Amino acid sequence: MAIKKVLIANRGEIAVRIARACKELGIRSVAVYSEADQYSLHVKKADESYQISKDPLSGYLNPHHLVNLAVETGCDALHPGYGFLSENAELAAICQQRGVTFVGPSSEAISAMGDKTQARKTAIAAGVPVTPGSEGNLDDVEDAVRQAEDVGYPVMLKATSGGGGRGIRRCDNEKELRQNYERVISEATKAFGSAEVFLEKCIIEPRHIEVQVLADHHGNVVHLYERDCSIQRRNQKLIEVAPSPQLSEEQRETIGNLAIQVTRQCGYVNAGTVEFLLDHDDSFYFMEMNTRVQVEHTITEEITGIDIIKSQIRIAAGEPLEFSQADISYRGFAAQFRINAEDPKNGFLPSFGRISRYYSAGGPGVRTDAAMYTGYEIPPYYDSMCAKLIVWAREWPELVARSRRALSDMAIYGVHTTIPYYQQILNHPDFQAGTFNTGFVERNPQLLEYSDKSRPESIATAVAAAIAAQAGL
Amino acid sequence: MAIKKVLIANRGEIAVRIARACKELGIRSVAVYSEADQYSLHVKKADESYQISKDPLSGYLNPHHLVNLAVETGCDALHPGYGFLSENAELAAICQQRGVTFVGPSSEAISAMGDKTQARKTAIAAGVPVTPGSEGNLDDVEDAVRQAEDVGYPVMLKATSGGGGRGIRRCDNEKELRQNYERVISEATKAFGSAEVFLEKCIIEPRHIEVQVLADHHGNVVHLYERDCSIQRRNQKLIEVAPSPQLSEEQRETIGNLAIQVTRQCGYVNAGTVEFLLDHDDSFYFMEMNTRVQVEHTITEEITGIDIIKSQIRIAAGEPLEFSQADISYRGFAAQFRINAEDPKNGFLPSFGRISRYYSAGGPGVRTDAAMYTGYEIPPYYDSMCAKLIVWAREWPELVARSRRALSDMAIYGVHTTIPYYQQILNHPDFQAGTFNTGFVERNPQLLEYSDKSRPESIATAVAAAIAAQAGL
Repeated sequence: MAIKKVLIANRGEIAVRIARACKELGIRSVAVYSEADQYSLHVKKADESYQISKDPLSGYLNPHHLVNLAVETGCDALHPGYGFLSENAELAAICQQRGVTFVGPSSEAISAMGDKTQARKTAIAAGVPVTPGSEGNLDDVEDAVRQAEDVGYPVMLKATSGGGGRGIRRCDNEKELRQNYERVISEATKAFGSAEVFLEKCIIEPRHIEVQVLADHHGNVVHLYERDCSIQRRNQKLIEVAPSPQLSEEQRETIGNLAIQVTRQCGYVNAGTVEFLLDHDDSFYFMEMNTRVQVEHTITEEITGIDIIKSQIRIAAGEPLEFSQADISYRGFAAQFRINAEDPKNGFLPSFGRISRYYSAGGPGVRTDAAMYTGYEIPPYYDSMCAKLIVWAREWPELVARSRRALSDMAIYGVHTTIPYYQQILNHPDFQAGTFNTGFVERNPQLLEYSDKSRPESIATAVAAAIAAQAGL
Repeated sequence: MAIKKVLIANRGEIAVRIARACKELGIRSVAVYSEADQYSLHVKKADESYQISKDPLSGYLNPHHLVNLAVETGCDALHPGYGFLSENAELAAICQQRGVTFVGPSSEAISAMGDKTQARKTAIAAGVPVTPGSEGNLDDVEDAVRQAEDVGYPVMLKATSGGGGRGIRRCDNEKELRQNYERVISEATKAFGSAEVFLEKCIIEPRHIEVQVLADHHGNVVHLYERDCSIQRRNQKLIEVAPSPQLSEEQRETIGNLAIQVTRQCGYVNAGTVEFLLDHDDSFYFMEMNTRVQVEHTITEEITGIDIIKSQIRIAAGEPLEFSQADISYRGFAAQFRINAEDPKNGFLPSFGRISRYYSAGGPGVRTDAAMYTGYEIPPYYDSMCAKLIVWAREWPELVARSRRALSDMAIYGVHTTIPYYQQILNHPDFQAGTFNTGFVERNPQLLEYSDKSRPESIATAVAAAIAAQAGL
């Protein structure tokens, strides 16, 4: 292994995940943390750790500072995780300049696929269908109106540099398009530092299907089958499954090959995800390529047995892929439940605070990627996801039953979580039948009608109760 | 499913495991517990729970009482787990008399395979090789001496009703045989209520290979490949792996078929394990059949994807197997580490007490079957195993690396455990090469020379430290 020590430029569960992969590879790892994160689990899982900022965010978002620290601590590589700077071409470029291997694609590939109109052109050049839309970026609102007439309403107005479900608005008619135009430009400027926007035909309640790819420096490109991420709320994924229970084997092969075509077309190297929309008539349309590892990479690992994070590091070290497409098969079904510290019954309001007691799930087919423990206080500055519960089973009905069991196994006291809401989804006949699209959550508001027995409690109360119970008081 | 409610006649992790299986099948479960076990996790995981004795053991060992409770609570089935009464033919017979389905083989099959000389005869009748040994039970010590001369020293003197590594002595010559004869009879009488003994040729440092079988009421018998349980200390298994890294595909097929022959010969139904010794010259000898689920069933689940406990319940309910031999394949390698509350450096002395802090392992390829939590006090009356850490990987070297990582992930404070000793085993070149036999532990006493950093601490200290740390004190 040409890589000996990795700086993990992230926090929480993905930083824990990367530290674990490094340990399995016999590589040293370095964690970074803000003051608010000093008791975060990722700090303990790495071999070394350094505080990078007093405030919650600036350290995680400063590419120069992170690469400096990598050099100073003798790291020969940097893994960006997901979120934060993971799709920041500058970080990849600085790494290259400073001789630190970036565990991800080249800065050029990040730029090319991060620009959504550029990515559309790449897909078209690769012979992959895209949704009808504007020719490149829009000049102004009048250009938007003209092009929307050609494409046909409803349309999606999108930030060219956007991603992760932000900087997107649906417009059902000219009036809404005119109203949303300045809003999206304003959002895009704030969130991504770019005012460029484009529009696409809006596919109504599609299924969100994405393909995991791995590409090495030796021209080998493989796909690891697809994930179905249709269970979303406001473009934020909640439950992901692999493979999709809604695809035939023929569709599975088709979409896998389309993903490989896009990956080859942009000369991509490392792990990436090609996202597609699947329309009611079973047409696939290229949506975007995510040039990083994704939150939901875990379920692909479960069905294929391939460790994606370790593969990323091996690819970055220049090693050829250990397997060809013919060596890769999938077994059973896997689901990932994003355990968010949120109160679904209260508009999914974040529910930060101290976890007074945490019981992990266990038994067959259950994997947990968590960044918490009994006594941990979830800081209010970051994403509300505090754990991922991953379930595997041989067949879809067994997956549903086992997921219910695993969610009931997992107990988190002190904060509200999305666990009871997921139990509701598992009880819905459409989910049980494996037929759902991105409209599922919005179409089923009645699933929020449950009695939430989880009550935030203080750690003092919980510990006192536990000690009293054990002492027989 | 013809079974609606199951009484779990066991405790600890296997009771948790059975409760989970019931939940996935949509079946209600009933836990039983002694007063000492009132805070055991299995009590919480079942739908109902009943205290069955004030003292630690009598309730778990009283077949009439257990079946009565099953009838009174409306259970139509009883699962015995492993240990306790799991191989007690009387329990199975009482269940049958009272109309409660016993989740296991018939009382006749338990008796037949529980009698070791009878089991040898069954194997011989099935055309399966057994080690050379006495014709049936021994009449007296002079008969033993005569038969040992025929067989050749060293010999193993064994209790006919024995099992689980008890009631067995190795005799290297006539003097040792005469010395041990009365001892084994005495042990056998105390432990199994029978004075019958027999002898077998002692295979020196064999490998312990066992095959998992499933047989239904419709004549279908399949094997789920083998487990290698050669890492033992005084006939107690410590680490089990599946499949064995020491078998060729041809040997794997051979031993699987031998196991099916034994199973068919005795008309066995439900899950069972056929144990073999593998000699230096690669000869297989039938050792015994375990007529219950085993502690190490988990690793077979990991490589085949088949849920053995759910299969047991389905078989007991009269359902045919859902798969034929051709449908069953294995993937990768799995290892199970028995996390015992023991101090290996102090002669593996039990180390009972309160678990002040428990951090579970997580991430890819890691499964935990545990019966503990932060604050749980391990009672001194039972087996010292408090958790099973199960690890899966695509290849043997990855399994070793991932196991190291997972064992370092898992942290148990307050009691000594076997975790640091297992890390030592994982570092041994023979284990890394996948070549080891039942002499491994005894031959490597230097593996006990490690510095044990885990220190028993009180829960009060731990919680105070955690709160102080979080409050920044």
